[in-house]
Amino acid sequence: MAETTPVSAPIPGPPGTERTPRVVAARKLLRRTGRERAGRFLVEGAQAAREAVRHATVRELFVTDPAAARHPELVAAAADAGARISLVTDTAAASLSETVTPQGLVAVCDLLDVPLADALGERPELVAVCAGIADPGNAGTVIRVADAAGARAVLLAGDTVDPHNGKAVRASTGSVFHLPLARDRDEGAVLDACRAAGLTLLAADAHGELDLHDPAADPVLAGPVAWIFGGEAHGVPVTVAERADHRVRVPILGRAESLNLATAAAVCLYASVGARRRRSPERPQGAQP
Amino acid sequence: MAETTPVSAPIPGPPGTERTPRVVAARKLLRRTGRERAGRFLVEGAQAAREAVRHATVRELFVTDPAAARHPELVAAAADAGARISLVTDTAAASLSETVTPQGLVAVCDLLDVPLADALGERPELVAVCAGIADPGNAGTVIRVADAAGARAVLLAGDTVDPHNGKAVRASTGSVFHLPLARDRDEGAVLDACRAAGLTLLAADAHGELDLHDPAADPVLAGPVAWIFGGEAHGVPVTVAERADHRVRVPILGRAESLNLATAAAVCLYASVGARRRRSPERPQGAQP
Repeated sequence: MAETTPVSAPIPGPPGTERTPRVVAARKLLRRTGRERAGRFLVEGAQAAREAVRHATVRELFVTDPAAARHPELVAAAADAGARISLVTDTAAASLSETVTPQGLVAVCDLLDVPLADALGERPELVAVCAGIADPGNAGTVIRVADAAGARAVLLAGDTVDPHNGKAVRASTGSVFHLPLARDRDEGAVLDACRAAGLTLLAADAHGELDLHDPAADPVLAGPVAWIFGGEAHGVPVTVAERADHRVRVPILGRAESLNLATAAAVCLYASVGARRRRSPERPQGAQP
Repeated sequence: MAETTPVSAPIPGPPGTERTPRVVAARKLLRRTGRERAGRFLVEGAQAAREAVRHATVRELFVTDPAAARHPELVAAAADAGARISLVTDTAAASLSETVTPQGLVAVCDLLDVPLADALGERPELVAVCAGIADPGNAGTVIRVADAAGARAVLLAGDTVDPHNGKAVRASTGSVFHLPLARDRDEGAVLDACRAAGLTLLAADAHGELDLHDPAADPVLAGPVAWIFGGEAHGVPVTVAERADHRVRVPILGRAESLNLATAAAVCLYASVGARRRRSPERPQGAQP
């Protein structure tokens, strides 16, 4: 079936090195300050770059010769989408990589976050809020879980890590590209926006007054809700938890001290999915209003 | 309050080195074959060692001078429980450690696993089965989640990683000590034992025929169930999934491809907790029959 394999045009050489100005400039995107200054971030590896081409604005694709040969369809799709294709050496590609075994393929994309109001849209039903999540792997996993549970958006409030951080992007396994992200260092502004959008604010809190499985929780969970998740060490900041409508605990029935952040977020978000389904058993799953 | 702080007796020196025979022997426990030959495993760090002293049989505690000074109550408790206390050098302690910053404290414990029938006990209500989970971090996290959800036991079937692996122990954050673990390389034997104990077998399967939130699933989830989880790459082995009573999928409502193993396991196990609670709203949470 060789004739049906897409073949990209040869990329004009010679390959850029780690000292080529465009590579030097792109390397600055490995740091948050560089990303914010340029308004762009790096997406590493074929699978993530494919999602980026499909769902985001890719400005440039740095690719080694072997990687271009492995992924001709991706190089062609990126070029079709208007990205500049830049051949680079293995060393140059590795200098843009944060992984142990670089794939030789790194895309430069526009930052993904949008204004709060745009992310929330009209009458959202389920939203995840990260309040002070410092670990990029955790933030990325929460974004992945929120995507899976059909959340309308993920809002990153306060001191939460940048979702464009390479580890966060990788942990999200593509989900950063699937649903709107919005950021605001002012946690109050995020809560106000959620409330204005008609969402009930639920803070996930190991010591919350409402048990997730309390029958009284079900009508709340089934309504339009914003689930707020905090960092693994200290949980949702007290000032945020106090402003929530309910502080909800995932019950610990055994002798475990706690759940980790990602598993607790998954249980909470899917509890909303389940509660909604019980209220409208015939409702087609997967449909966002 | 210095007089109420427990002070352990000075540990007879000189400290053992990495060439001391007891340290050399203990180091073999870093590998599965060594653990199986000796019937013992290593538990690293003060927090995990404390759980081990409380819930398991600790044979020996290797401790550096500074660590003994930091944790006198732990050294005393281990000695009270019959453990030999062995002072070692920093290098010797590090040679028994798998972490980047060794704490200078490593306990030698008897292996935790018990026969299948003992783990299942009489009329279990909720059990987690790991079927072919190769990653120790994943296995440990499933054990932690199962503990949190009040599971009676975790059964490790087939090619599942050894739960006494250091990474698994650490990922479980103490939960390996909280509930019975049983292992059997024969997956069929594990399934048979679950069925004989009256459990309905539910395979967590991204392509399962039963939606976790289907109203028809609720009575099943609320009954006595064994949830079966497979490895992240290939899921529950087909031969095991075929023998389950139901293959249950966590619905993916957004554009995420999947959930990771730990989050999927948390959603499944807590779905059983929630379903049971809806059937008996007054039932005290946390009580195991």
